[in-house]
Amino acid sequence: MLHAGKTLQADVAVIGGGVIGHCIAWEARRSGRSVALIDDAPGQGASWAAAGMLAPVSELHYQEEDLLELMLESSLLWPAFAADLARAGAADPGYLTTPTLAVGADAADRRALMDLRTVQQASGLEVEPLTVREARAKEGLLSPAISCALEIAADHQVDPRKLVASLRGLLAVHEPGAGTAVGGARGGFAVDDRARSLLWENGRVTGVGLAQGRTVQARETIVANGLQAPSLGGLPEGLHLPLRPVYGDILRLAVPRHLRPLVTSTVRGLVRGVPVYIVPRQDGSVVIGATQREDAVSAAEDPVKSDTAVSAGGVYQLLRDAQVLVPAVSELELLECTARARPATPDNAPLLGRVPDVPGLIIATGFFRHGVLLAPAAAAICRALMEGRGDRRWAAMNPSRFSRPKAPGQDLPGVIDHQKESA
Amino acid sequence: MLHAGKTLQADVAVIGGGVIGHCIAWEARRSGRSVALIDDAPGQGASWAAAGMLAPVSELHYQEEDLLELMLESSLLWPAFAADLARAGAADPGYLTTPTLAVGADAADRRALMDLRTVQQASGLEVEPLTVREARAKEGLLSPAISCALEIAADHQVDPRKLVASLRGLLAVHEPGAGTAVGGARGGFAVDDRARSLLWENGRVTGVGLAQGRTVQARETIVANGLQAPSLGGLPEGLHLPLRPVYGDILRLAVPRHLRPLVTSTVRGLVRGVPVYIVPRQDGSVVIGATQREDAVSAAEDPVKSDTAVSAGGVYQLLRDAQVLVPAVSELELLECTARARPATPDNAPLLGRVPDVPGLIIATGFFRHGVLLAPAAAAICRALMEGRGDRRWAAMNPSRFSRPKAPGQDLPGVIDHQKESA
Repeated sequence: MLHAGKTLQADVAVIGGGVIGHCIAWEARRSGRSVALIDDAPGQGASWAAAGMLAPVSELHYQEEDLLELMLESSLLWPAFAADLARAGAADPGYLTTPTLAVGADAADRRALMDLRTVQQASGLEVEPLTVREARAKEGLLSPAISCALEIAADHQVDPRKLVASLRGLLAVHEPGAGTAVGGARGGFAVDDRARSLLWENGRVTGVGLAQGRTVQARETIVANGLQAPSLGGLPEGLHLPLRPVYGDILRLAVPRHLRPLVTSTVRGLVRGVPVYIVPRQDGSVVIGATQREDAVSAAEDPVKSDTAVSAGGVYQLLRDAQVLVPAVSELELLECTARARPATPDNAPLLGRVPDVPGLIIATGFFRHGVLLAPAAAAICRALMEGRGDRRWAAMNPSRFSRPKAPGQDLPGVIDHQKESA
Repeated sequence: MLHAGKTLQADVAVIGGGVIGHCIAWEARRSGRSVALIDDAPGQGASWAAAGMLAPVSELHYQEEDLLELMLESSLLWPAFAADLARAGAADPGYLTTPTLAVGADAADRRALMDLRTVQQASGLEVEPLTVREARAKEGLLSPAISCALEIAADHQVDPRKLVASLRGLLAVHEPGAGTAVGGARGGFAVDDRARSLLWENGRVTGVGLAQGRTVQARETIVANGLQAPSLGGLPEGLHLPLRPVYGDILRLAVPRHLRPLVTSTVRGLVRGVPVYIVPRQDGSVVIGATQREDAVSAAEDPVKSDTAVSAGGVYQLLRDAQVLVPAVSELELLECTARARPATPDNAPLLGRVPDVPGLIIATGFFRHGVLLAPAAAAICRALMEGRGDRRWAAMNPSRFSRPKAPGQDLPGVIDHQKESA
């Protein structure tokens, strides 16, 4: 099957070089597998905009118990994951275990946060109410007009751009020159191309064809390319990946010297029912975000509109609400406005696992707002699946859950339709 | 005086490649003079941020009669200037003669605009009140909640970035290779370097020394480098150029197809006493600006702070106030946030003219908010000065007006101190 100049070979082909793809690739690599990580714009998707909050407690939503269990699992994995990165000599990913402060602006925000606390406590999560005076003793620039503050010690942060760079450094070996097959190598390499279509052979996924004509042959192929996943060619027949883009605007701001540190904790606010967060970075800058837009007019319908278009209304809302919590935000320097689409699913939980009866294929997408937090768990789950150690706890995440069941006697998914891809 | 590889020669050396410097350079060039335009970052200063409103009527301020006369003069020059550019084969500078709509948000804004109209009319300027219904018939996306609207037919616009590119194209001849002296050539050339110090010989300015060691020899040297002017070496002794930076934030936004055109006129609003403008560009985008900040903490005092730092509070204010006038602004795509400092003077009028008793030197800076409007007049005035046709009308702009008078018998300014510069 090897054509000189055409075929690369690895134990694992990971499609998609965001935080999820990179974490999976590194996990596969440190389990002794060779890995090809395929992306023509690594780290430039949702990972580029993510604030990097590792916040299972504040991100708890009503009636998302399965997702909560996965978030808590991944939250427990994070300290060891960060320590392993450091031990492996990776560049600093900006992992910080400073606490999160949940803050309400008015009386209704206070009620909403206190109601949520009841649920958080019922789930065994620690959320500590502070008086406004106590909160302002910790964060001197918080507005005295806030209605409540709750300390959440377990909600931490990492810098997603640094994290991708950190993991990318560990992949280490770059893409071998065109024409080199690296079968058998225990290395990892980055393939600067776009995945076009899965390859099939005898009912099994055997790799992926790339846009520029080459192929990557792999024992396991992992689809981790976010919103692009449904448009990948050669997906198993009948597999429905119902991802929709939920846009988010995010700001990066420099804090002038006389205002440093603006905040020491991550401040997550509810301002008249609308969430906003202020995440302090190690370099003294802050990240402000939280908009969620599902645009009426899609980029496809308006050629003028880009998929990375920053919303003027979104930026306005972020600056308005952040100033309600921390008035000094108005004195910051606006460094960057970014927007990206996150891959959301109907139940807000990821599409993560094997497709029944399709060996060689794992799906890992739909992480929506939780990709950075869930990355170590996703990587561990993918590794376990490759090693035949599937965990029933994560059955609710299975990527076929929105697909119509096959009629009895129907062909194995994909075998017939996609046989041509293995030619 | 020519050293191979060291000296360039031109009839006119223009220091500063913003809109003002480029207009002066072109005017000098089409009067038959050779021109060296010196700037290591042409068009990247205040010109980069300018909205390009040509608005003598709306920019009228109380008790600035001398400035108004200059603005009206330049406003009259603009149509011929734009036509000359087109005739010369220049790239389109985005000159548009669409009207301006002055709009008030509340009753106090209405009173302020109507009071200003009284003064505008006393100066012979045409300002036509419209009903809100009439205004909305012209501009369908104007908020129905505005308090007043006034049409100003004489206030137009140009795109300053395009204008600089347009004029730069006309300079045409690029910097000659190092070592080439172009004495006698009737051309224009751009010198990609920073002016360090004026050169003097026998009480006369004879050109300028550059940061990288070369010199430009010129019969006339014109200082048109905005806020950098006071730090130029070798200025005439006792000449005080009291420029201060007044920062402005400006936004560029894309209008989605279903909202085009957002507005057809330039909309200049007063929103609870604070000015904001929305300038529609030919390509369907809009420019929103008007902040004026004189920062308490200067860039010099805070090493974290950049001179081109965009203020988060400024961006917030612009988006907030623009939405009051045109609510659909919230649906636009934010393309760019830019900030620059404009060179302001104590009386808001430019420093424009010769320094008494200093032949070979013309000052053209301090144009503050009015550089783009005033550029053709500044160019014409500089040309007239070079041709010995000074106009008493512009005596109030003389660049020495903030300098202490010399004691009788004192040396001619600069001759002794700066003689060394001519070595």
